[in-house]
Amino acid sequence: MTTQLKTQVCIIGGGPSGLLLSQLLHTKGIDSIVLERKTRDYVLGRIRAGVLEQGFVDLMRQAGVFERMDAEGYVHDGTILSSGDDEIHINFTALTGTPVVIYGQTEVTRDLYDAREATNGHIEFNVQETTIHDADSAAPYVTFTRDGEQFRIDCDFVAGCDGFHGVSRQTIPADVRREYEKVYPFGWLGILSQTPPVDDELIYANSPRGFALCSMRNAQLSRYYLQVPLTDTPEDWSDEAFWEELKKRIPKRAAEALVTGPSIEKSIAPLRSFVTEPMRWGKLFLCGDAAHIVPPTGAKGLNTAASDIHYLFHGLVEHYLQNSDAGLDAYSHKALARIWKAERFSWWMTSLLHRFPEQTDFDRKMQDAEMAFLRDNEAAQRALAENYIGLPY
Amino acid sequence: MTTQLKTQVCIIGGGPSGLLLSQLLHTKGIDSIVLERKTRDYVLGRIRAGVLEQGFVDLMRQAGVFERMDAEGYVHDGTILSSGDDEIHINFTALTGTPVVIYGQTEVTRDLYDAREATNGHIEFNVQETTIHDADSAAPYVTFTRDGEQFRIDCDFVAGCDGFHGVSRQTIPADVRREYEKVYPFGWLGILSQTPPVDDELIYANSPRGFALCSMRNAQLSRYYLQVPLTDTPEDWSDEAFWEELKKRIPKRAAEALVTGPSIEKSIAPLRSFVTEPMRWGKLFLCGDAAHIVPPTGAKGLNTAASDIHYLFHGLVEHYLQNSDAGLDAYSHKALARIWKAERFSWWMTSLLHRFPEQTDFDRKMQDAEMAFLRDNEAAQRALAENYIGLPY
Repeated sequence: MTTQLKTQVCIIGGGPSGLLLSQLLHTKGIDSIVLERKTRDYVLGRIRAGVLEQGFVDLMRQAGVFERMDAEGYVHDGTILSSGDDEIHINFTALTGTPVVIYGQTEVTRDLYDAREATNGHIEFNVQETTIHDADSAAPYVTFTRDGEQFRIDCDFVAGCDGFHGVSRQTIPADVRREYEKVYPFGWLGILSQTPPVDDELIYANSPRGFALCSMRNAQLSRYYLQVPLTDTPEDWSDEAFWEELKKRIPKRAAEALVTGPSIEKSIAPLRSFVTEPMRWGKLFLCGDAAHIVPPTGAKGLNTAASDIHYLFHGLVEHYLQNSDAGLDAYSHKALARIWKAERFSWWMTSLLHRFPEQTDFDRKMQDAEMAFLRDNEAAQRALAENYIGLPY
Repeated sequence: MTTQLKTQVCIIGGGPSGLLLSQLLHTKGIDSIVLERKTRDYVLGRIRAGVLEQGFVDLMRQAGVFERMDAEGYVHDGTILSSGDDEIHINFTALTGTPVVIYGQTEVTRDLYDAREATNGHIEFNVQETTIHDADSAAPYVTFTRDGEQFRIDCDFVAGCDGFHGVSRQTIPADVRREYEKVYPFGWLGILSQTPPVDDELIYANSPRGFALCSMRNAQLSRYYLQVPLTDTPEDWSDEAFWEELKKRIPKRAAEALVTGPSIEKSIAPLRSFVTEPMRWGKLFLCGDAAHIVPPTGAKGLNTAASDIHYLFHGLVEHYLQNSDAGLDAYSHKALARIWKAERFSWWMTSLLHRFPEQTDFDRKMQDAEMAFLRDNEAAQRALAENYIGLPY
């Protein structure tokens, strides 16, 4: 006995990408069903990035989900890159006219869930054995189970928003996919603490001891990171050891101002660059982490997902409302063109700011010279700022 | 029996750096003697770069050596970077207000010799066993021999303009020097041919087959380069093989326009980045290749030497005419600050445009993405242009 469902767009994955696409489509009267492997609470428990490009903010606004973001988000007009005690202030607003917004991914996701609920959006949680069928045909469908019950969704299109480990990318035959990857020889040890952030803006710190990042979620919730060897585990790092090491990597004036406290989350994430091409196969469209991963330096993860959603949303609107498949046909090409630039930016910022095991003294001097050039050259600052606030869609 | 000589500044090396310094000092009434290991004809037989920054042009003007350069030099308002048939035009003049000048280093050197001769400049050719003595004392002196005859020059200062293999850098004790080096895993096979250049501007070509450069000396003298493995020799490359390979690496419209002809010079140069710190030890000041080497991508070799000469010349003028050693005391720091940025630029252009043996598909995509970003982003173009025309002294 199989429960039969029908929709226009079946969205695999109930993270921010899938929910945003679903809500955007709803504003145009296009029907979708979102499938999520976990529970809503589980999804909301994930700690993720919190720097939103203006393009992302605009999409949230277009989706009608902006009241809490506008009220609680922090506008950041710039960021700081430091090398020892030397600080370079990159003023996004002065250089580009556009700031970024600090608003946690968890909050984005929560707002999108609330919006989908308020508009009777169809989300299926706890789905298992999700399988995409006949994506290269005119009549694709998706099957899944829950508690032994069988489901089938017939649809026009499938949006693969199910992340790096999801089924969507794997659905594209291996001989069609081309994958590009770089694994970095270190990880980020991150902690969350209920303390006021050390600075009004983020501090990206290049130090002889390794990279550190001072970030934040709100006025009472700070997020700090340390570059650590991949062999380290969170258990190797007491809170005290973390704070002591952080103080040695950031500018002295920041170390002196740092308010420490117990960590309420502590984890190590590896750093990876990854892209799969193409991002479309028949009726299946990959979005976000399903198609690409960036290292977190430069805060492009959620924002690259938003860029895909932008192109796919407009392609679907053209298909359903304007009787044109031009947008869908251009999806993979357009999305990848912007993704590769974001990949380059994230790779460049990672390369500029971290210590690499194989780095020579000359390589180290190239980092110093690039920091010195950035400090003194307005064009280089503007190129950084334009990447950070998000290249045009 | 030793011939005793006396001067204010003893300049080791009769290449363009040493000659320019000597001529500049002459304009301020400061006396110098230039020592050159080879003959004048030998020095003028060296084939070298030909892209002059405005700062270099200004120094030549200040030295009073500009008539032929102004008459025969070519003003280049920009350059081309290509990737396959895709060409990015970097318009220096539009982006920065400043062009570069194409005028061969051989011509620069010839003009400087003529100027030194016209003003009775003292140049000793064919010197051997040059030794710098007591550079860390108040009374340095330089000894050399010629045909068995002994010479001694007492002086106030020694300018080490004798290149990478010269004695000047080696005079600084090893425990004082810190050296930084990167050796690239390929060389440039260059030919000179009496043919009209393929384009009005230089073409820096990134190709899957390796880098190529279309350069020139004048309207009838072209200089072309191919990236080749270090194991290749010039004898491995017939003229035909060179032209065939070049056509495969440059944009099709250029390959079709290329006028080929017999090579009148053919050689392979390795690519190296090198810097020694400090650039001053007591009364000894290192200039140009004696202190630093760049790979030729970006044409910074002669121009970084000019930057050193600028700082040293002004320091010596302050010493002799303004009774201040502030400029000399700041020499190493100021010169190195600019050198490291030029090293970064040359390393970056080399990294962007060449094929590297260890390059992964992801690394290759980073090159493509950087070219795409450069094509679309005015700030990135301006950062490149500002480096190419020369950062401010």
